[in-house]
Amino acid sequence: MKENTNSETKTMLSSLDLPADLKNLSLKQCAGLCSEIRNLLITTVSKNGGHLASNLGVVELTMAIHRNFNSPDDRIVWDVGHQSYTHKILTGRLEQFQTIRRKGGISGFPKPEESEHDVFISGHSSTSVSVACGIAEAMKLQGKDNYAVAVIGDGAMTGGMFYEALNNCGRDKNTNLIVILNDNNMSISKSVGSLAKYLTSLRNTEKYLNTKRAVESGLEKFPIVGKPIQKSIRNIKSSMKYKMFEQSTIFEDMGFVYLGPVNGHDLRELEEVIHMAKSYHRPVLIHAKTVKGKGYLPAEKNPGEYHGISRFDIVTGNPEVSVCECYSTVFGKELVKIAEKDDRIVAITAAMKYGTGLQFFHNRFPERFYDVGIAEQHAVTFAGGLASMGQIPVFAVYSTFLQRSYDQLVHDVSIGKLHVVLGIDRAGIVGEDGETHQGLLDVPMLTSIPNTVIYSPSSYDELKLCMNKAIYANKGLAAIRYPRGSEEVSFNRSIINTEYMFLRENISDTLIISYGRIFNEAYKAQGLLSSDGIQCDLLKLTKIYPLCRSLIGEILEYKRIVFFEESMGEGSISEKLGDRLAECGYSGDYSRITADDFVKQGPVRGILSELGLTCDKMAEHIRKRSVMNGET
Amino acid sequence: MKENTNSETKTMLSSLDLPADLKNLSLKQCAGLCSEIRNLLITTVSKNGGHLASNLGVVELTMAIHRNFNSPDDRIVWDVGHQSYTHKILTGRLEQFQTIRRKGGISGFPKPEESEHDVFISGHSSTSVSVACGIAEAMKLQGKDNYAVAVIGDGAMTGGMFYEALNNCGRDKNTNLIVILNDNNMSISKSVGSLAKYLTSLRNTEKYLNTKRAVESGLEKFPIVGKPIQKSIRNIKSSMKYKMFEQSTIFEDMGFVYLGPVNGHDLRELEEVIHMAKSYHRPVLIHAKTVKGKGYLPAEKNPGEYHGISRFDIVTGNPEVSVCECYSTVFGKELVKIAEKDDRIVAITAAMKYGTGLQFFHNRFPERFYDVGIAEQHAVTFAGGLASMGQIPVFAVYSTFLQRSYDQLVHDVSIGKLHVVLGIDRAGIVGEDGETHQGLLDVPMLTSIPNTVIYSPSSYDELKLCMNKAIYANKGLAAIRYPRGSEEVSFNRSIINTEYMFLRENISDTLIISYGRIFNEAYKAQGLLSSDGIQCDLLKLTKIYPLCRSLIGEILEYKRIVFFEESMGEGSISEKLGDRLAECGYSGDYSRITADDFVKQGPVRGILSELGLTCDKMAEHIRKRSVMNGET
Repeated sequence: MKENTNSETKTMLSSLDLPADLKNLSLKQCAGLCSEIRNLLITTVSKNGGHLASNLGVVELTMAIHRNFNSPDDRIVWDVGHQSYTHKILTGRLEQFQTIRRKGGISGFPKPEESEHDVFISGHSSTSVSVACGIAEAMKLQGKDNYAVAVIGDGAMTGGMFYEALNNCGRDKNTNLIVILNDNNMSISKSVGSLAKYLTSLRNTEKYLNTKRAVESGLEKFPIVGKPIQKSIRNIKSSMKYKMFEQSTIFEDMGFVYLGPVNGHDLRELEEVIHMAKSYHRPVLIHAKTVKGKGYLPAEKNPGEYHGISRFDIVTGNPEVSVCECYSTVFGKELVKIAEKDDRIVAITAAMKYGTGLQFFHNRFPERFYDVGIAEQHAVTFAGGLASMGQIPVFAVYSTFLQRSYDQLVHDVSIGKLHVVLGIDRAGIVGEDGETHQGLLDVPMLTSIPNTVIYSPSSYDELKLCMNKAIYANKGLAAIRYPRGSEEVSFNRSIINTEYMFLRENISDTLIISYGRIFNEAYKAQGLLSSDGIQCDLLKLTKIYPLCRSLIGEILEYKRIVFFEESMGEGSISEKLGDRLAECGYSGDYSRITADDFVKQGPVRGILSELGLTCDKMAEHIRKRSVMNGET
Repeated sequence: MKENTNSETKTMLSSLDLPADLKNLSLKQCAGLCSEIRNLLITTVSKNGGHLASNLGVVELTMAIHRNFNSPDDRIVWDVGHQSYTHKILTGRLEQFQTIRRKGGISGFPKPEESEHDVFISGHSSTSVSVACGIAEAMKLQGKDNYAVAVIGDGAMTGGMFYEALNNCGRDKNTNLIVILNDNNMSISKSVGSLAKYLTSLRNTEKYLNTKRAVESGLEKFPIVGKPIQKSIRNIKSSMKYKMFEQSTIFEDMGFVYLGPVNGHDLRELEEVIHMAKSYHRPVLIHAKTVKGKGYLPAEKNPGEYHGISRFDIVTGNPEVSVCECYSTVFGKELVKIAEKDDRIVAITAAMKYGTGLQFFHNRFPERFYDVGIAEQHAVTFAGGLASMGQIPVFAVYSTFLQRSYDQLVHDVSIGKLHVVLGIDRAGIVGEDGETHQGLLDVPMLTSIPNTVIYSPSSYDELKLCMNKAIYANKGLAAIRYPRGSEEVSFNRSIINTEYMFLRENISDTLIISYGRIFNEAYKAQGLLSSDGIQCDLLKLTKIYPLCRSLIGEILEYKRIVFFEESMGEGSISEKLGDRLAECGYSGDYSRITADDFVKQGPVRGILSELGLTCDKMAEHIRKRSVMNGET
């Protein structure tokens, strides 16, 4: 028997066999269920943190989907995936829902290993239509007549992949592909660009199909005047090849049937339009208008703040942790300072103004600030264009999303030796968002691009130093990587610099090397080991790439070298150092601790500990190496 | 004094001071000049090889641009860039034009270091609007009222970046940004997707602006019937918020003024429309219809074959080298064989059907073949969708273009452990196309993604073995990298396999490691050294990643290890081996030869020699290492 641990959900939700029972409910019962789900969402996210506003916006839409499709035979693909909470609740994960985003709990994103109803990994934006297109084609090849359904927000539509997919899906007229546009006129914050304006114009039209039909039939009602008007209209149509009337939306131009806009909170309307969409057996786009944060006033009023949120107080709506100083805000404020004195500085974000701390820059220099939407490829090449004219573009971006612009960094910045500065936020472990969001690949990615310089500061003050260095002392592509969250400095702040620093507190044969946030752990590990009688020297890298050549000579003097690095191991700095040591004929004891696979969700410190990157684990590793070599 | 070495161009072209004099010519003189340029293009490409059809298509367009803009104050950005030959001729590079694509000669793509008129590197597709957008914003910040002009083909419009850029450019109404769509209804081969159909519909309309105006003014001519019709039309317009009439093209929906379509070979018409475009002082898109290959019948008839071409006979139009066996065709034919027996196999290309040898698959299994256009991001995620349904997708792609899908490989394939096979064509040095096209980053890129397997065969037979292994024995992401061109096998063909092979012909302290095409050079180097009295063993890797753990033990036994690798050095297999050696405490002599910076154009063998990756250079390196250690 199920045991329901959440007192507020003891009513209908817990009594149903989901998703099967959904189809037997009346619309009125559904409304009650929606209300229960909203309460559960608010309660749970208030405790666990997570994405609230986007999930509140799709409660009815998700219910309509599961009432009118047969998951998992029909396959529902959630773009970005952070809006899949109701989907999880409705597909057998009610009991586990309270564990969402916690270590060992269910993910805040769709995960096939978690449920057969989660058909595809998501976390990054704008992938769903490509995925659904692949699924629909496979269904066709396999002779299945099920549906592939992609649910995508208007924000995610600013990513180029969406358009690449549209171009390809609309071509095959015989697939059961349905794209549901969840249009809340928001991505993470207010949507930007021409497409947003365009969608707003669509949102504000009458229901499109009805209008078109009404115009055509309305004309029939003028028996005398009507006919010539009709003829005239036909002539106009003809001269324009029917285009203007027959294919009026971008989606129709791209080969889709367009249905909508419909009220995404009106279950009856949603079900009607889904029913209609299913009848076409060709690519259809349903345009559903929703309200982000629907049903919880603080979230409706401030959907941006309630997009991704830490724990909060339900009654007051106050987030538990207010916006405090963190690497992102320090970055944002320092950039304003630099830009005060230099009008060549321009700042770019890909839909992460608040996340990257660029709101300060936007407020101060709106004319030099560019939010390009979820379009990291464009962001980098746009930066290249600006740099080619002598501006100094600074692109602040999460490490994981920078992966989208690898080719642009190579082709549009580095080959041309253009000076572009990257502020790589959320570098390293990010925690509860899990595999898709960890920032572990920026080092391998950037070091493969010739002539790149990378800094990794260990404190706010060092971040500021590095920014100035990257902007003014370097040429070409220069990056600064820093973690999510706040500084936790254990070392003497006077040692900060932009190159490297040896901390030789004693004569030792062992050298610990580290950089970035976890240098602070290495510093503490040195202390722990010292009190055990194991003396280690420390090397703190700030410019992590390229490694200073003269440094190698000093490193070679140690009998034991241990490198702790918050990065994927393949392509990491410690791997490069290993190779250099081999090429120098080093015969001592070299070991390195890094991440070596995708890293699942959990609290940051817990993950770092599992990876062996906290001070106690570092100390333990070095003790073991000492024992292996018979030294203690 | 200029010396004109090309007898056919001694007339007008050589007598002009370009581009300045262009503006003083009559249209008739321009026509003569266009004819001269076409001759020069055909003559030169027939000798040097290069892109012919696309260049023949934009002769008038390029002339119209340089007559109506002031380069380099106005900045012309060529998308992909392979259509910039006329631009080069018209901007002071007539004399060097015969050196195009040759070592030390001018590039076949725009290069800022070559001329101030080449404002931005290009080579990959769909970047120009982002670049021009950056330039236009910089001009605005700097108070310049010059123009930023992007010239983009319809094929390049299938790339998502184009759409990301449109979304961003159309937003700022006050920039002098002009996008010229060079629509030849082709990309490299026939354009694919809904957009192509859409453009075809636009191509076939009357000139759009005129039509719209004619409709509006035509209605005024019915004094009695006209008024009610007008009113009726106004009502219709009103009910549809003017959308259908006022914003009928995708480009207008995205905030651009749309002008066209115009005949891209009619200089007068082009000049008129450019003049009109300049007057708007806001983003404008000009739709120019051109004919790929225009003016050279064989190229007009077969624009695909004359897209990128080797040397050919002008009179007969016959390419000097007909389509012969190469790694691409072997790959394509083997894939057909495998697919004969397995209907789960599907093949995907991003606009490179012929280049990747997939034409055989397309002919045999049209229903399992997908050409997605220039959309590598979609290609990979689409493959992920197919794989999630149990299909086995094989994506054949050039190494350099795979860079576009790094994030999709991580996020949409590897995290979800989906089985997708990559055929990485043009891996390593590609030759005359230069920096933007070398395939040197696939190894660093792919090895950074956990659980990836990479093969690098050294012969056709080994390619076939690896394909079967990657498809059937591996899970997750499995890649096979092979070079451009034909096999040149120096070793005993019986040793092929899919793992590795030690060739111990004698007792030696030196081990040479290599893989792929250049293993054949390493094999020859062993012979050269042997005849010098220097005995080396050889290790041939086929599965280059991950390295077999048991292999390390055998490698460690050698006093000298030399690794030759046709890849960028950072993130390479030889770097990883170096690190492993260090971690194993290896104290011998380890050295490795790789590429360490972007590699300029030249013949493949010449470049390999410069990099130290031909047999004589390999032998030389090993001799030097021996001398350094006092062994000879």
